Amino acid sequence: MRDVNEHTITQAVVDRLADTPDPRLKTVVTSLVRHLHDFVRDVEPTFAEWQAAIAFLTRTGQTCDQHRQEFILLSDILGVSMLVDAINHRMPEGATETTVLGPFYVEAAPERQNGADIAGPLEGTPLLVTGSVATVGGQVLAGATVDVWHADDDGAYDVQQLDALGGLAGRARFRTDAQGRFHFWTVMPAWYPIPDDGPVGDLLTATGRHPNRPAHLHVMIAAAGFETLITHIFAADSPWLESDAVFGVKTSLIADFAERPAGTAPDGRAMDRSYRHLAYDFGLKPA
Amino acid sequence: MRDVNEHTITQAVVDRLADTPDPRLKTVVTSLVRHLHDFVRDVEPTFAEWQAAIAFLTRTGQTCDQHRQEFILLSDILGVSMLVDAINHRMPEGATETTVLGPFYVEAAPERQNGADIAGPLEGTPLLVTGSVATVGGQVLAGATVDVWHADDDGAYDVQQLDALGGLAGRARFRTDAQGRFHFWTVMPAWYPIPDDGPVGDLLTATGRHPNRPAHLHVMIAAAGFETLITHIFAADSPWLESDAVFGVKTSLIADFAERPAGTAPDGRAMDRSYRHLAYDFGLKPA
Repeated sequence: MRDVNEHTITQAVVDRLADTPDPRLKTVVTSLVRHLHDFVRDVEPTFAEWQAAIAFLTRTGQTCDQHRQEFILLSDILGVSMLVDAINHRMPEGATETTVLGPFYVEAAPERQNGADIAGPLEGTPLLVTGSVATVGGQVLAGATVDVWHADDDGAYDVQQLDALGGLAGRARFRTDAQGRFHFWTVMPAWYPIPDDGPVGDLLTATGRHPNRPAHLHVMIAAAGFETLITHIFAADSPWLESDAVFGVKTSLIADFAERPAGTAPDGRAMDRSYRHLAYDFGLKPA
Repeated sequence: MRDVNEHTITQAVVDRLADTPDPRLKTVVTSLVRHLHDFVRDVEPTFAEWQAAIAFLTRTGQTCDQHRQEFILLSDILGVSMLVDAINHRMPEGATETTVLGPFYVEAAPERQNGADIAGPLEGTPLLVTGSVATVGGQVLAGATVDVWHADDDGAYDVQQLDALGGLAGRARFRTDAQGRFHFWTVMPAWYPIPDDGPVGDLLTATGRHPNRPAHLHVMIAAAGFETLITHIFAADSPWLESDAVFGVKTSLIADFAERPAGTAPDGRAMDRSYRHLAYDFGLKPA
């Protein structure tokens, strides 16, 4: 135990974990030590590089506050969040694919009736969203809750500008009807950069990467007996689809937010200006 | 790029690093992504476990302040600090082995004359330290600076109790004489626990580990043309030698802090009580 060297120290640390009471924690920390040591042996950091890593992690922790989670952002841009997502959502045929939750979800979103306009004070191109929720076998699911939230046409979420907006906007909870359908109006979301004025932004800059995410609508669908679906629908005409900063894009989640001329919309609303229409059908995986 | 899954996402993230201007940073971040993803694939964390990891890292960053570096402590207890040390100090025969710097080094330590007593207000068993500094070939090195610092008999460093002590104590810088020798008096250091009231302490508890380090004297020796030596000398009769919380012990760094009866000490000082004597000869690696 005493004469640990660069080859024997990993086993020495693993041996020290022998008395971990919780078997799962033992597995996780043991694996962490092995992979972390492999990384160190691979890159052979200098003392100064190790110090820089310590300083980066410290600054990442200290950038976090009530409204900002810089370690989640770091997990996102390193592809870790999407990897954890993929591992936890191996989806059967017919189930909608998942993507990251993101930091802007609000649990107590206002419940609205189908057909409502949730844009509130947000400006931008009107957007009609129509959709349905079904099982992977195609059976419609009535009474499922459908949470939606999205950025405005400047790429900002309501929770990033609560004072200016006077409350939540571009965010609501719907319930599917007897045919498993829901629909609502809002405004077209824009692409946006993730917060890039902290250590994660510095890392993106240092590695020649941009901080941008393509335009998307967040959707979370819950129904008894099914795995809660957390996903986005991405606008097919948005920039950054090929290089989402957080690796969240999947082909099956890209859809037309189709341009429509003024006139009577599919839900009967008389539109005096052009608008967009997204139609998307969701499939839930059994719990 | 779009359809990343749990098998393809690693290469997708690595590809995104292609434009990193600094080649060393590219190597390090690429390796980090590969090893981090391997760790995630190995343990397959649940979403809740991923959230717990984010919270742990955040708390670790937020526990750091001007006087405390919790991420260094985390690096220490996971064996990463000693691994980085081992990689950066592959020592030739005859050179003293290295160990961690620790968080209690002070650059502007007071310079003292050989033979000085540096205990100041610290109480405890008197300790005489005699030593020499030479090349790996055995040639004596005159004029080398020898920084020493250590905990008191309660296991606390001077910088942890500056108000109570009224200044630094148990800490000084000496210079080797024409024969490469130095010597001084102080008091016997005690073993101590690393700060364990934060997330690192929680991790130690959760993994069934104690936070203790065996009693030791810190030594840093610098001479022009040689690699600066950062090491400890551990007391052979201390507890925790077999399980130093930070994996810093090496057999070659364990020495007798020998008990001596009252009488004339080797340096001629008349001692009216028993004391300890540490004699250690150091070898420096060429720069």
